[in-house]
Amino acid sequence: MNENNNQQHKPLRKIEELGEFGLIGYLTGNIQVKNKSTLKGIGDDAAVLETDEKVSLITTDMLVENVHFDLSYFPLKHLGYKTAVVNFSDIYAMNGIAGQFLINIAVSNRFSLEALEEFYTGVKMAAERYGVDIVGGDTVSSQKGMILSGTAVGYAEKEKIVYRNGGRPNDLLVVTGDLGAAYAGLLILLREKETFLANPNHQPDLTPYAYVVERQLKPEARKDVIEWFYQNDIVPTSMIDISDGLSSEVIHLSEASGYGITVYEEKIPVAQETAAVTEEFNIHPVTAALNGGEDYELLFSISQKDYDKIKDVPGFHIIGHYTEDPGAFLITNANEKVEMKAQGWNAFFDRQKKKP
Amino acid sequence: MNENNNQQHKPLRKIEELGEFGLIGYLTGNIQVKNKSTLKGIGDDAAVLETDEKVSLITTDMLVENVHFDLSYFPLKHLGYKTAVVNFSDIYAMNGIAGQFLINIAVSNRFSLEALEEFYTGVKMAAERYGVDIVGGDTVSSQKGMILSGTAVGYAEKEKIVYRNGGRPNDLLVVTGDLGAAYAGLLILLREKETFLANPNHQPDLTPYAYVVERQLKPEARKDVIEWFYQNDIVPTSMIDISDGLSSEVIHLSEASGYGITVYEEKIPVAQETAAVTEEFNIHPVTAALNGGEDYELLFSISQKDYDKIKDVPGFHIIGHYTEDPGAFLITNANEKVEMKAQGWNAFFDRQKKKP
Repeated sequence: MNENNNQQHKPLRKIEELGEFGLIGYLTGNIQVKNKSTLKGIGDDAAVLETDEKVSLITTDMLVENVHFDLSYFPLKHLGYKTAVVNFSDIYAMNGIAGQFLINIAVSNRFSLEALEEFYTGVKMAAERYGVDIVGGDTVSSQKGMILSGTAVGYAEKEKIVYRNGGRPNDLLVVTGDLGAAYAGLLILLREKETFLANPNHQPDLTPYAYVVERQLKPEARKDVIEWFYQNDIVPTSMIDISDGLSSEVIHLSEASGYGITVYEEKIPVAQETAAVTEEFNIHPVTAALNGGEDYELLFSISQKDYDKIKDVPGFHIIGHYTEDPGAFLITNANEKVEMKAQGWNAFFDRQKKKP
Repeated sequence: MNENNNQQHKPLRKIEELGEFGLIGYLTGNIQVKNKSTLKGIGDDAAVLETDEKVSLITTDMLVENVHFDLSYFPLKHLGYKTAVVNFSDIYAMNGIAGQFLINIAVSNRFSLEALEEFYTGVKMAAERYGVDIVGGDTVSSQKGMILSGTAVGYAEKEKIVYRNGGRPNDLLVVTGDLGAAYAGLLILLREKETFLANPNHQPDLTPYAYVVERQLKPEARKDVIEWFYQNDIVPTSMIDISDGLSSEVIHLSEASGYGITVYEEKIPVAQETAAVTEEFNIHPVTAALNGGEDYELLFSISQKDYDKIKDVPGFHIIGHYTEDPGAFLITNANEKVEMKAQGWNAFFDRQKKKP
């Protein structure tokens, strides 16, 4: 348990000491609300939000210990940060700005009060960085492990909301940043865990892997991209965030629109650091981009008429386009046209890689 | 496991058969949105809600198997219903009307697809009855048991929102319906469980206990009361729903306002059926009302000037009033003034009851 790894000798406090109301008060007592849209945060039956004639967006997800995260290598502060950021990312993927966050936590009695504080510190850091108010949440006992449920609320002008289904033939498909890094970070962390289990005196040196490990442990959501859209008067025709890997998201956009999408392998952005790691593991870098997930970059489409506005934006990569005929296809570097699958690419690329 | 108690011989389907997207599609595929405020429900990165210049309310809570509910006597359909209703209740407690609901579910592989469908059927029944749209939610694997996280969104005109802190000296304290019934129902269900464990052939006859068992297994939230407030142009000065027992809620209202509250034991409404059960268990009926919880009735205060409007409303019980001096006190039937405590009343009343 990482939360017991600290070197302090002060005994850790038990959660039961405080009782339910005391605990929630302790964890949330110093939370201040900052957004004009938050009329009332924590402390009543519900939070009260005012929306200035705008439209609200709401998203929620659940994370389960040892299913979605592993505390043996995932620090609680980072987990708090990530739990918040992944929900903000869903709001940005609608072309909205996140305003409020609610966090429900269930923990077993193996967690100390200090552990919960660490987690909350991460949530607060994310809220601070993204300008989001924490306005509610429940903290309860679990029978086993930690279970998290985050809910984010955001806002957008109605005509600026971007759905998954709006892409049309010839629209350009654009991805931000680079892909596969979070998955490469996961590969490193899992290898370090194995090494540590085999030899508890092992001192990991993650310095060469700093970039990919940070992409896994401290992902950022692309609020900056949404702000850029607003400033440059661009409304994408469709958008989704990359949580499950590029393949899965391209298929979602294609199916929602009823049209096809063609993606070019050579256009898929993968960082040098990511490629170096995946090569170490004998995995094709593009496999990590297609299937890795957890990058929280944005995948969006724009009308051809907006091409000039976006073509020179650093970090925007045009990777393909919509087509009249349905289906999501990848044009490989060998100029083969392959249907994209939400899973199974590992097999394809790893086999390809082993060819002489 | 109650979800395996059915007499069908068709093998239950495993959740893994469907995969994550398949599962969510299966469970939510036939959900239709009805409210004007729901622009987009399930199926994108976030739900989209439009609020007609009103203020939004949001509330969330988490329920853990064997901490908050016990599936050995709590049918999954009822659990789904209750998970939704308790969140709606928090919206009504702000004098708002619930509009949308999101439900996150984590379940271990001991749950079949049919079990999840049962749960969802209950959520849908509640949504239908209260005019609420189901607009999102996650369904994931847990390591152990079932963990639920519900989030409700509601609306109110800004000037009609009722907080916990608005009660002022001489305001009348009013409670709806009757109290302690859900706790009495719990006592019966726990006794039946013990009996069943001792003798699996035992056939329970819950007929005499129908009222209290239903209050436990199928609680209703008081949307009707909020509608009555709107129709009669009354805005309570404070309000809270009774989830943790009357004592706890009176203390919340008193502390939030900075004033005191005096409650009269003789005025606390307890149904005949509830009293009969608590007497069977040698518990004072008022103890069940004060500490039992889960009644989901509304506790609110009104200005004296509104007395005439509410005095003859069936099911409204004036049980006390706000005072200048802080502190929450109960005037007992023996005319003793006792400070109310969120816990510990059992001891007091049970001792009192055993007096000759």
